[in-house]
Amino acid sequence: METSRILVGIDGGGTRTRCLVATTDGRVIAEGGAGPANPLVVGLDRAVENIGQAVRQALEASGHTSAAVGAVCAGLAGAGQPETQARVAAALPGALSLSPGTPVQVVSDARVALAGALQGRPGAILIAGTGSIAYGLDDSGRLLRAGGWGWILGDEGSGFTIGRQALAAAFAAKDGTGPATRLGDRICAAWNLQDLTQAVPRIYADPSAARTAIAGLVPEVVQAAEEGDAVAAEILARAGGDLANLAAALLRRMQLREPLVATTGGVLEGVAAVRSELVRRLAELVPEARVVESAASPAAGAVLMARQMAG
Amino acid sequence: METSRILVGIDGGGTRTRCLVATTDGRVIAEGGAGPANPLVVGLDRAVENIGQAVRQALEASGHTSAAVGAVCAGLAGAGQPETQARVAAALPGALSLSPGTPVQVVSDARVALAGALQGRPGAILIAGTGSIAYGLDDSGRLLRAGGWGWILGDEGSGFTIGRQALAAAFAAKDGTGPATRLGDRICAAWNLQDLTQAVPRIYADPSAARTAIAGLVPEVVQAAEEGDAVAAEILARAGGDLANLAAALLRRMQLREPLVATTGGVLEGVAAVRSELVRRLAELVPEARVVESAASPAAGAVLMARQMAG
Repeated sequence: METSRILVGIDGGGTRTRCLVATTDGRVIAEGGAGPANPLVVGLDRAVENIGQAVRQALEASGHTSAAVGAVCAGLAGAGQPETQARVAAALPGALSLSPGTPVQVVSDARVALAGALQGRPGAILIAGTGSIAYGLDDSGRLLRAGGWGWILGDEGSGFTIGRQALAAAFAAKDGTGPATRLGDRICAAWNLQDLTQAVPRIYADPSAARTAIAGLVPEVVQAAEEGDAVAAEILARAGGDLANLAAALLRRMQLREPLVATTGGVLEGVAAVRSELVRRLAELVPEARVVESAASPAAGAVLMARQMAG
Repeated sequence: METSRILVGIDGGGTRTRCLVATTDGRVIAEGGAGPANPLVVGLDRAVENIGQAVRQALEASGHTSAAVGAVCAGLAGAGQPETQARVAAALPGALSLSPGTPVQVVSDARVALAGALQGRPGAILIAGTGSIAYGLDDSGRLLRAGGWGWILGDEGSGFTIGRQALAAAFAAKDGTGPATRLGDRICAAWNLQDLTQAVPRIYADPSAARTAIAGLVPEVVQAAEEGDAVAAEILARAGGDLANLAAALLRRMQLREPLVATTGGVLEGVAAVRSELVRRLAELVPEARVVESAASPAAGAVLMARQMAG
């Protein structure tokens, strides 16, 4: 019988799931990964399946079994609503073979990102990966958000929005409704298409799946912008501006004594043009805001929250 | 054995399918209807099923059986690509119990709308219903298009785009990233929601199905605009302007001797604010363009094309 207890922290995004296993004092001892875990996009079953795969991989690497798990915290994209959180939380004990009574918490991916980035301090986090959201904890302990309404209703400044605007700009250039751009050629090369119109049936056959493929076009937009394509540069600048608006709207509502904004996600970490425009524009909108590096990853934030649950 | 021959014309849209049965001289004798028939959105099987239902209903009303059908022309939303047209055309003879050798043609919904609107004359048609497209036949017999890339990549000025922008504006007002609007309250009332956030899981559970529900929000936007909501009025004006851009881009490429633009679809026929802005803006962009009434419906255009096929 195992007597040592361990903590499991999960960051389930729109593209991939990451799991960390840590000792009860928060030291990370193993890691696992799997596909997307946004229950609204891939469905509850597949989300739980991918979480299970990431956790099993991490447990195996740690040398522990599920009997040793003392607490689980999962932050998932698409799990902002209490009903969604409850449905996933009900499925996890069985899927992860947890001992009866093991505490399990399911929150949004933004919540664990905030916990990791600011280690529990008040402030905001701005996330731009496949999707986007601004999320924060104010001085009185309230959690607030702006954006994060998903790829149909929101996700301004996200990888998906950048990719979709690149596709729309390529079609507009073809139609003559928009300026010329090399984005069409870049997209055809990246997706191995003879003609841009071949993208149409591919995208509509499974829109939810196409979402990650479209977000995967961000490097093409960056490359085109670096080669001098004005349309591509404009798309990246607009993303930075939209993210600044999102953060500014949240900060105005939060009224923090010290308005910290940490950033995370592939777009803000990987695309310098978006990040620099965000910083420039946010300085105009909320001069007292301070953009800071995240202290730790969303998965580490999930571990931190699991640690608090385990007492 | 039946000796009289009849013609079948089908207009399959993103929301509903309409079938007309006509005599060989083009006189309409019966009509049938069913649900959506966009094969890219509802899938090939359901599209064919709905077409079959509309045709059976019209045949029954006409007092003829499928043995009397002399030619079938179906214009379908989402059937702009030759491969999609070929797949539907291969499924229809069986689904409609046609006599062997009965000519069947599948084209885009824009193609039959053009045939109906201008009765074969050169010119353009601008369609804004659930989706949008500009489509035309030039003086040398070439078919050209602008827009119509579907709800993820295009559909500027469509009912879906108007509805999505209304939802996005309602969320932006809630977040503080956009101006106040009564659209949120209107959407909650129309969809029977206690809170706007309840729209989120509803939309992402089945994005393709949500598409028609979102397009169904157009009357709420119209109502809000008429009550003085500036955000709603701006969404409708933008739709009119985007549709003018689409038509103008097509007309520039077509170089017609007489630049006629017919209009059709629920948004252009039913929303005066969109239509008036289209007319105003198109007059600025292409002063020589003339916006005309459609001579006949897309389904009647399909009958016209079936008549040409039957010789």
